[in-house]
Amino acid sequence: MQGFTRGEIPDYQVSAWLMAVFLRGMTPQETADLTLAMAASGDQMDLGRLQDTVDKHSTGGVGDKTSLILTPMLAALGLTVAKMSGRGLAHTGGTIDKLESIPGWTPELSEERFLAQAAEIGLALVGQSRDLAPADGKLYALRDVTATVDSLPLIASSIMSKKLASGAHTVVLDVKVGAGAFMRTVADGEALARAMVDIGTHAGRQVRAVLTEMDTPLGHLAGNSLEVLEALSTLRGEGPADLHELCVALAVEALAAHGEAEDAARMRAEATLHDGSALAKFRAFVEAQGGDPTYVDQPEKFDVAPGRAEVTAPAAGFVSAVDALGVGRAVLALGGGRERKGEAIDHGVGVELLKKPGEAVMAGEPVLRVYHRDGRGLGAALELLRAGLSIGTEPVAPAPLILGRVH
Amino acid sequence: MQGFTRGEIPDYQVSAWLMAVFLRGMTPQETADLTLAMAASGDQMDLGRLQDTVDKHSTGGVGDKTSLILTPMLAALGLTVAKMSGRGLAHTGGTIDKLESIPGWTPELSEERFLAQAAEIGLALVGQSRDLAPADGKLYALRDVTATVDSLPLIASSIMSKKLASGAHTVVLDVKVGAGAFMRTVADGEALARAMVDIGTHAGRQVRAVLTEMDTPLGHLAGNSLEVLEALSTLRGEGPADLHELCVALAVEALAAHGEAEDAARMRAEATLHDGSALAKFRAFVEAQGGDPTYVDQPEKFDVAPGRAEVTAPAAGFVSAVDALGVGRAVLALGGGRERKGEAIDHGVGVELLKKPGEAVMAGEPVLRVYHRDGRGLGAALELLRAGLSIGTEPVAPAPLILGRVH
Repeated sequence: MQGFTRGEIPDYQVSAWLMAVFLRGMTPQETADLTLAMAASGDQMDLGRLQDTVDKHSTGGVGDKTSLILTPMLAALGLTVAKMSGRGLAHTGGTIDKLESIPGWTPELSEERFLAQAAEIGLALVGQSRDLAPADGKLYALRDVTATVDSLPLIASSIMSKKLASGAHTVVLDVKVGAGAFMRTVADGEALARAMVDIGTHAGRQVRAVLTEMDTPLGHLAGNSLEVLEALSTLRGEGPADLHELCVALAVEALAAHGEAEDAARMRAEATLHDGSALAKFRAFVEAQGGDPTYVDQPEKFDVAPGRAEVTAPAAGFVSAVDALGVGRAVLALGGGRERKGEAIDHGVGVELLKKPGEAVMAGEPVLRVYHRDGRGLGAALELLRAGLSIGTEPVAPAPLILGRVH
Repeated sequence: MQGFTRGEIPDYQVSAWLMAVFLRGMTPQETADLTLAMAASGDQMDLGRLQDTVDKHSTGGVGDKTSLILTPMLAALGLTVAKMSGRGLAHTGGTIDKLESIPGWTPELSEERFLAQAAEIGLALVGQSRDLAPADGKLYALRDVTATVDSLPLIASSIMSKKLASGAHTVVLDVKVGAGAFMRTVADGEALARAMVDIGTHAGRQVRAVLTEMDTPLGHLAGNSLEVLEALSTLRGEGPADLHELCVALAVEALAAHGEAEDAARMRAEATLHDGSALAKFRAFVEAQGGDPTYVDQPEKFDVAPGRAEVTAPAAGFVSAVDALGVGRAVLALGGGRERKGEAIDHGVGVELLKKPGEAVMAGEPVLRVYHRDGRGLGAALELLRAGLSIGTEPVAPAPLILGRVH
């Protein structure tokens, strides 16, 4: 990994090795050794002066604004989040993009300010440094052109190399499973979670994973400003049940990793969403990174695209599926995401799920609402949403959100 | 293969594919398709105006002068050999190097002269053209640095791509098995032979393979001039039994591929080594390519290195093994082979097996004789030969020479 990063080991040898790993796998020890070497290929954050550091990672979902809620909850619970986050690409959003819906908020902090802010309020969030695990970026580029992306040890080591280099002692993982996720089955998701937890164990870190359903978008809103608005509701204790449940579950894992009993942890985590303590941390965090804190208090200030269009139920029945991938692609079509790195995005567009799977609808009743800007990408978005909407004649119980835990 | 040869497909993609083939194999159809594409990557010889064309290939042995004997036999039998041959590298010799022991003989013929000579006397032999299956050379270079050399379909396609591009309708293969060969077991040798025969079938050619033992060098002599001398003895019907037997067996395969009954074929093939017809073809061939034909009639004219040294039996007993690889390396040490392409070689040095496995020896009796030039490489050669010589207390029946046939 060191030689490859420096360009001393040629791509043609590494790609032959990648194919060998793709076809034969790696042992847990090999996977951990690879991950540590990848983490050591560039800068490594030293969070040693901070107490009880926690990082969180999601394998990528649609409408997933969990980080916006979970990280201030963890800060309110006395843990420290000094986290690097990414921007969105293709149909998945990024935490940095969502937070940039708040005027003035910046992900660019010096290392000194980043550490000081994390120590002071328990929460600091910056963009991903270029020199963090550079081997991962080089390796991914080679996997992309050699048909070796879909390899469990390579996926696990890619994610964990950046988490290890980011320096937190505890890592809570949200492994998405379903039609809208990279892992399509619970078995695949469990295997990936197990591989990542094993890497953490070998590296002397505490890693815990929750497997969560990602057939349907999380919550009711997808799109940058819309997701911040839904996160603010949830921080006030008024969020949708699935999003609320997932944030509490992840907070419980973080506390349990620090030795807290689960029942006590769950009560304390729930409390942060009802007593205003998580919201207060969020407000302090926004302000510390240059954001206008009045947006936290007055959500009506957010720029939401004014155009509206709706997808209605073609017949009476019960919503059986709202395809998460289709919703993600619809937001992308509307201008709310980027096809290529560096592209500007429209923070105000998005999609609202007026009904979620299991709910009854009448013929002609709106099921999905589109927030568009002057009709840009509207036709494509509506087509994607219609294709992803299924209405059945029988009520279908929605899948449970939390499908498993690995630690 | 076309894109790879032209440099349009990058090495890193081809090396990932090579590893996939190495680990997963290929179907016979895939192997044949690859081979045809490799054969089509450069020039292809058109032997269409010649009758009953036959080519021969050996997977590489030590002391293997079979081509020198078999090709004039085939010409004497009425078949046409218009063949490309290689030079030796490392411990294996090359037919071109051996023939260059005859002053004046040249492997450089224009295509026109090559075809005319083959039509006239039934035998013409030239050096390997650079543009014959260039994909094979590029692919081999990549296999060499990605640990993918030892793959049966890749070995088979490498050999057969050059044979297909060389244009002969019938190909007789001598697949060596044993300590001195690439294939160590009969099962491996059979699998390789089967793969090459299948490629031929898919390509509309007649391919037949004989599996032969290669623990011990073939015949009694190894080294360029020495091997031509042994070939001349064999063409006079006075050759060692193993070499004689193998040449007849390969000629029978060539005739059988043309529909001749085996018993009749064997009688006709044997006859060429007793009635002088094969020797006459060899003489005509040498003369046609500029060689001094008096060397064929007066073998004492060959330059044999004057230095002599012997390896003796340390105790009385029975020769149980003379390691072929050790003999090949000893010839190389003496200056009779080359480590790198283009190096000059000494045609006169070599090794003689005075005793072969199964024969009884007295203590101190010479078992191997070295022909050296002024002691060059003598110490290393003797050490290699001593290490490869085993004397046992019980007589061991030598392994049969012909281990199987595949067609």
